[in-house]
Amino acid sequence: MRTYKELDTFQEWASDEKDQFTLSVMKGLILDAVRKANSGHSGGPLSSADFACILFKDYLNFDPDNDQWFNRDRFVLSAGHESMLQYALLHFIGWMPMEEIQKFRKLHSHTPGHPEVEIKGVEATTGPLGQGVCMGTGMAVAETIVREMFKKHSDQADELLGHFTYILCSDGDLQEPVSLGAAALAGHWGLSKLIMFYDSNEAQISGKTGRSDSTNVAAVFEAMQWQVIEIDGHDHSAIRDAIEKGQVMDKPTLIIGNTTMAKGSATMEGDHETHGAPLPQDEIDATKNKLGLPPEAFYVPDECISHFRERFSDLAELVHGWSENLASAKNDSEFNSLWNLAVEDNLPKFIYPEFEAGNSIATRKAFGFTLDKFAEQLPHLVGGSADLEPSNYTGNFAKTYGDFLKDNPSGRNFAFGVREFPMAALMNGMTLHGGIIPFGGTFLVFADYSRPALRLGAIQNARTIHEFTHDSFFVGEDGPTHQPIEHAMALRVIPNFKVFRPADAKETAVCFELAVRETEAPSAMLLTRQGVPVLDFDMSEVRNGVAKGGYIVMDCEGNPELVFIATGSEVSLAMETAGNMNDKNIRVVSLPCWELFFEQDKAYRDSVIPERGCMKISMEAGTTLGWEKFIGPAGLAIGIDHFGASAPNKDLAEAFGFTSKHVEQKIRDHLEKLL
Amino acid sequence: MRTYKELDTFQEWASDEKDQFTLSVMKGLILDAVRKANSGHSGGPLSSADFACILFKDYLNFDPDNDQWFNRDRFVLSAGHESMLQYALLHFIGWMPMEEIQKFRKLHSHTPGHPEVEIKGVEATTGPLGQGVCMGTGMAVAETIVREMFKKHSDQADELLGHFTYILCSDGDLQEPVSLGAAALAGHWGLSKLIMFYDSNEAQISGKTGRSDSTNVAAVFEAMQWQVIEIDGHDHSAIRDAIEKGQVMDKPTLIIGNTTMAKGSATMEGDHETHGAPLPQDEIDATKNKLGLPPEAFYVPDECISHFRERFSDLAELVHGWSENLASAKNDSEFNSLWNLAVEDNLPKFIYPEFEAGNSIATRKAFGFTLDKFAEQLPHLVGGSADLEPSNYTGNFAKTYGDFLKDNPSGRNFAFGVREFPMAALMNGMTLHGGIIPFGGTFLVFADYSRPALRLGAIQNARTIHEFTHDSFFVGEDGPTHQPIEHAMALRVIPNFKVFRPADAKETAVCFELAVRETEAPSAMLLTRQGVPVLDFDMSEVRNGVAKGGYIVMDCEGNPELVFIATGSEVSLAMETAGNMNDKNIRVVSLPCWELFFEQDKAYRDSVIPERGCMKISMEAGTTLGWEKFIGPAGLAIGIDHFGASAPNKDLAEAFGFTSKHVEQKIRDHLEKLL
Repeated sequence: MRTYKELDTFQEWASDEKDQFTLSVMKGLILDAVRKANSGHSGGPLSSADFACILFKDYLNFDPDNDQWFNRDRFVLSAGHESMLQYALLHFIGWMPMEEIQKFRKLHSHTPGHPEVEIKGVEATTGPLGQGVCMGTGMAVAETIVREMFKKHSDQADELLGHFTYILCSDGDLQEPVSLGAAALAGHWGLSKLIMFYDSNEAQISGKTGRSDSTNVAAVFEAMQWQVIEIDGHDHSAIRDAIEKGQVMDKPTLIIGNTTMAKGSATMEGDHETHGAPLPQDEIDATKNKLGLPPEAFYVPDECISHFRERFSDLAELVHGWSENLASAKNDSEFNSLWNLAVEDNLPKFIYPEFEAGNSIATRKAFGFTLDKFAEQLPHLVGGSADLEPSNYTGNFAKTYGDFLKDNPSGRNFAFGVREFPMAALMNGMTLHGGIIPFGGTFLVFADYSRPALRLGAIQNARTIHEFTHDSFFVGEDGPTHQPIEHAMALRVIPNFKVFRPADAKETAVCFELAVRETEAPSAMLLTRQGVPVLDFDMSEVRNGVAKGGYIVMDCEGNPELVFIATGSEVSLAMETAGNMNDKNIRVVSLPCWELFFEQDKAYRDSVIPERGCMKISMEAGTTLGWEKFIGPAGLAIGIDHFGASAPNKDLAEAFGFTSKHVEQKIRDHLEKLL
Repeated sequence: MRTYKELDTFQEWASDEKDQFTLSVMKGLILDAVRKANSGHSGGPLSSADFACILFKDYLNFDPDNDQWFNRDRFVLSAGHESMLQYALLHFIGWMPMEEIQKFRKLHSHTPGHPEVEIKGVEATTGPLGQGVCMGTGMAVAETIVREMFKKHSDQADELLGHFTYILCSDGDLQEPVSLGAAALAGHWGLSKLIMFYDSNEAQISGKTGRSDSTNVAAVFEAMQWQVIEIDGHDHSAIRDAIEKGQVMDKPTLIIGNTTMAKGSATMEGDHETHGAPLPQDEIDATKNKLGLPPEAFYVPDECISHFRERFSDLAELVHGWSENLASAKNDSEFNSLWNLAVEDNLPKFIYPEFEAGNSIATRKAFGFTLDKFAEQLPHLVGGSADLEPSNYTGNFAKTYGDFLKDNPSGRNFAFGVREFPMAALMNGMTLHGGIIPFGGTFLVFADYSRPALRLGAIQNARTIHEFTHDSFFVGEDGPTHQPIEHAMALRVIPNFKVFRPADAKETAVCFELAVRETEAPSAMLLTRQGVPVLDFDMSEVRNGVAKGGYIVMDCEGNPELVFIATGSEVSLAMETAGNMNDKNIRVVSLPCWELFFEQDKAYRDSVIPERGCMKISMEAGTTLGWEKFIGPAGLAIGIDHFGASAPNKDLAEAFGFTSKHVEQKIRDHLEKLL
């Protein structure tokens, strides 16, 4: 084994000696950084390092001068706790300064405990296990669709827009069920450019994986139509072979790397206690000695950096050739405008479907009409339903644009199956990849299933559009398990997440547009199962009002005594109730998006919902907790704070007090009580 | 084929002719009920009916006179949308009156759209797919543990407490990833008395399963250590064989029944559009004709009822023998007291661990101490962690009581692996079974993963105890993906769900006790990673205060000018801040459980948090939305409404304003602004 003492002869070393020493230097860097942070993960990065190092050094295509090069290979560290491994690799690339490595896990550093997408070279924020597997899968989907989309306008699309997506995952990632949902879809869709390395080190925070598992992972993935290659995860030539086999297979590839936790450490190899902690300093010292490293901390000799960057001139050439090809492809004006739209995200002015005032249209149905209309204008709008196609009104879209399938990679519809969480997590990956705008549909009550991905989308400022239909107890006969009560409010508390609950078909179209234009946050659209009347406004009024989050839809002469603040299906209920209460001066406000409303200045907000001088009454077929924000202590919140029941929705409206008669009575009782 | 016209010779029919006709009658009943409801599912119940009918008629052990007989076999209809199939079976048993069948999906009926556990003969509320698979698995776990627990005191425990758990699941159930997590655990644990029938009819709401799947389900389950038997799901003798093979295998058994959607219908066999809708009346008429049924609706001849109940006298005998054996086993006083405690749920007065005031103890650590103490007093307290054993402080429990494993079925600890959602959903099944009290631990941020099961626990009034540690940005270095912000509030909006956020070690012990005693709702305990000072109260004071949800922990002379309302780690922050602000009359309230506080009368609530005459300031390291309920429009909510960051927690406390200095400044600024 070569040691640092022989470094002056580095140029004469055999290639694998250079690789091994560079790998050892990287391991030393990882151990030092975790030690200095006094927290973090040591064992996992060391068991994964062989694969990651070879991948980055010899296979991953990227532009050393531009981390955002569109056709780069994507790499997702699903095992986000192995962040220091990724930061070490980024240091070797030249994107991560040593000062940042030394500030690992410190405030305002670029080296947080888990990788964050804002960091140069990090493709996805990971840490919550399983979701990196999904996001990587979503990126491979996006790669396929974007490539196919441009094929119509360029013979070179395969080279211009063909890249691999690599995922590095851990035992925990594959225990987390969501990853199996993504794997089933990846296999079904035959994502041939997806290569996942499973660092099977068998050590978890609580001990050996054998405590929790006897699953034959290889057999599971084969059953899900993956190519599975099992290797010694520390054998470099086996790693190379496996990657190369993955690159040419017409299926996704799982490389199971049988590895040793904390590989290379002096005395702690295989010890699961190295999982979530720094190694003791004397172990680090002994490890460095064993690996042929000097005792100094953060040792990274230039020789290793140069060796790691051996391929950089080839990469520069690759990128240069690509740029020339792109420029030439752009001579095709249709290619050029598609590029401008899909890749550069320059959105057009949208044409809405037309809705006639007075008609009764479920907002889920209005979503379907709008989807059909927008899909014509946005060829990169893709999406589907978690097996609720007729209920989500995405059936026409599916029929028009076809299912995305192994044999139909240009399909724009995803038949996700009953897989809400994989759907949402894949959508995050699609958005992060870029070039497409994804939507996914299910019932609002099942937003609970996808919630971890909704949050991870919000953290990553990812534009994803979540269509949640059947948005209240008005679901009716399906009963309490299918009737959302707390969901609207539970979504509103997620930071950087836009919740839209449109009052009618027109608001639905506008909300959909706003969701498409919201490039820095996910959006949820909460839509009715039941018909609601189309309001009598022209679209520009609706557009203005909805864009501000809330606006007056019905007003009185002079100052209002009562202000009804409603969302979704309760807006028409509020208007009907107001119409019946002629003895009162009443204003009705539609508040389709709280988040947008709070982005307005106080003057606007007060002009819609006065702070003082009136009684405020909220109406939403959901939990009342949270509405105190608007109505204050003297106000009245009309909602529902218990689970629903199975019955036709009209009977439920009676039983739960959501008729104008009941609402009026509640308001009059409340006023009486205050007198 | 026999028809209703030959019914007068029913006694002379061959046994399988009787079975077939009874099955047809059941199908007619299902179609009529769905038709009358004018909504619901027709196709699935018909494809599953062969299996279900044979199971109930010939294999399922139950007491016809007592649906709550403790040692009954459990049956979970994971495909909850096939509810009418279950109601039809219950009608044949005699537990579901025809009037109720005719009120299918109507308000106040006992025949809601999806089965609800309150209904006689229904073991679990199902509908949200995948979770029935988990709950059935949890029941099989509970059966095993309860049986093993009593073995120490009775040679007959195998007969007294040994029963099968049957699950009926659909394509969608197995697409839903959570079911694969449960399957992996069931296989690992070798749950030999678990038998699942998979109605593989390949038709979903959106079309053929082939649109979304190419998974080889048999291979997946075999890889997860199940016995897999694939049969024609309409072949009665194959069904019988498979059930019998399942009963004797030392693994869980999956019976894959290849079936035809809407089997038996006149012209719509295999049509996925029969999934979520009534069949047209003329199709029903033709189907009845085809099946040999008369045209009349809700036709159920006594002959079929009698035939279905053929085994009832045997069952009565079985139950009688069981009761005698139980009475005899109860002669052992230890058996008797364990029965009294675990099965009859007569809980003792609890002994708490001791905590010294002034010490700094993380509440997660206090949970661990309390767990160890309670586990001694409650031999039926079982649980574990989703691979965060050292972080959740459940390691000592695991060491003391051993992992539940195939070779150690009396283990009380579950090494769930990284499977939060399966963990929570299994816990629901364990609770529904009875005889054990389950807890499960993970980080609070991962409550999002288990959320669908938290809700389904709340709907079912299921006592489950969810330990959520690392309950705020004070998690520190792990960064925003691991730092809950919105989670406390997002849990509080779930109806019938108790959220506890204890201020110190003593409150933690009391919250744990209250969670154990709360037999009608799930509880979540939100616990700190970081140390917090043990408050200087004696346990009876803490017990009284916490049981009321909120109480005064620090008070001033006379009426308070400022009332600080805090939870968890912010209680000591509030007290420190109050101590520093000598110029103000300040009261500090600890509010560990909102839900319990709102159960108190207004007089008590006002005596703790006065409605008027003081400024109210909430302090919680989480989202502020919702706190308006307490503080009113003039109050101040100190919280955090954005994602966290990776850094040592002390640095975050500075950055996010959670030091007494910052808090005091915010309060003084707010007071100034109001002047």
